[in-house]
Amino acid sequence: MQARLIMSKKKKKAVVLLSGGLDSATTLYIAKNKGFEPYGLIFDYGQKHLKEIVQAKRIAKVAQCSFKVVKVSFPWKGSSLLDKKIKIPKKRSLERIKKEIPSTYVPSRNIIFLSFASSFAESIGAIAIFIGANAVDYSGYPDCRPEFIVSFQEILDKGTKSGVCKKRIKIYAPLISKTKAQIIKIGLKLKVPYRLTWSCYQGGQKPCGVCDSCLLRQKGFDAIKFKDPSLK
Amino acid sequence: MQARLIMSKKKKKAVVLLSGGLDSATTLYIAKNKGFEPYGLIFDYGQKHLKEIVQAKRIAKVAQCSFKVVKVSFPWKGSSLLDKKIKIPKKRSLERIKKEIPSTYVPSRNIIFLSFASSFAESIGAIAIFIGANAVDYSGYPDCRPEFIVSFQEILDKGTKSGVCKKRIKIYAPLISKTKAQIIKIGLKLKVPYRLTWSCYQGGQKPCGVCDSCLLRQKGFDAIKFKDPSLK
Repeated sequence: MQARLIMSKKKKKAVVLLSGGLDSATTLYIAKNKGFEPYGLIFDYGQKHLKEIVQAKRIAKVAQCSFKVVKVSFPWKGSSLLDKKIKIPKKRSLERIKKEIPSTYVPSRNIIFLSFASSFAESIGAIAIFIGANAVDYSGYPDCRPEFIVSFQEILDKGTKSGVCKKRIKIYAPLISKTKAQIIKIGLKLKVPYRLTWSCYQGGQKPCGVCDSCLLRQKGFDAIKFKDPSLK
Repeated sequence: MQARLIMSKKKKKAVVLLSGGLDSATTLYIAKNKGFEPYGLIFDYGQKHLKEIVQAKRIAKVAQCSFKVVKVSFPWKGSSLLDKKIKIPKKRSLERIKKEIPSTYVPSRNIIFLSFASSFAESIGAIAIFIGANAVDYSGYPDCRPEFIVSFQEILDKGTKSGVCKKRIKIYAPLISKTKAQIIKIGLKLKVPYRLTWSCYQGGQKPCGVCDSCLLRQKGFDAIKFKDPSLK
């Protein structure tokens, strides 16, 4: 028992961005599988789909991952995820989803999230940040692409005390080049509790099935012929 | 009168980070002087020296600059500017101030501030962000150095809808290579209301005169033999 405790103390810390969705849950389990001690970071930023916060906390608990919730206000308009007056797009074709940046884009959201992750990582001495960004089956958000992740690594190296003092914080985006089907396959092997994950952009009790996020999720489960456990 | 209104409508928008201090106030007046319509962004992040927020608002009003206040929580420890249990350093020599990153460093603060500035800029269609970062008479913060600013430009270019859609947002850090004396000289020409600026890290009614920020400010006014108007 004592040996296990000592082992546990030696684990390297990693901050993991948790949204309650399928990708971030998988990313959390990948971080654990790589031997990191994960510290979840969940954002309450006024999103319509508040349920994802509840689910993110549940996933963290099942994964025995401590977490912090950061409240962030966006006191300006500009996204259908935040603004009740703007409708969330429905039934877009998968081709169109890939081509256009939709109204669900929240200006600079991942930049803000990674900035807080950087602050949290510096404060607890973590050497890694995990983000479930994906640039294959995604909604065309610029802050989910590999070149953005590379740029943010520069920020961590040049703009933080950790970076300057040679205690580099490394960003991991293990899903960035994977299809949704590949992500689910990895997650099933790692026993990710997909029944708890929430992807839908709408604020309903059940997933709407027609927003971009629901459609991309369904595409993934369909491709591997596996029933989405959250729909049971 | 109508001609002036039309002119005013044509002005390009710029987000200006406002702290209430001498550097950011000067930066605001530089932005105005360059012909931008400034949009101030002020942060309430739990700092001990809350007075700077009051002063930032006053400066914005005098400069006829609209502004937003963003409340940001840092639910972790790590800085004497936030944590009441950690004392703010006093009477450090100017040589020492330049050499060490002090306990007043707030992990990743400017990364977070610029991230919100990016979001705000995207949302209002601004083409510029002004930050009063300075890497000469400063406290050694890594997120005040030119290489950090260059990295953040990459983030704006690669990780935002504006950057991807060729509506580039450019960061201006006009004070980055100037001494405090040079900054004050520029500000006096532009009629910056220095009487309203607040630099002290302590939460007192009057500037303490011994924190790094007070010392650097005093050095600037001494160098040009000008009495600090805020001390009258």
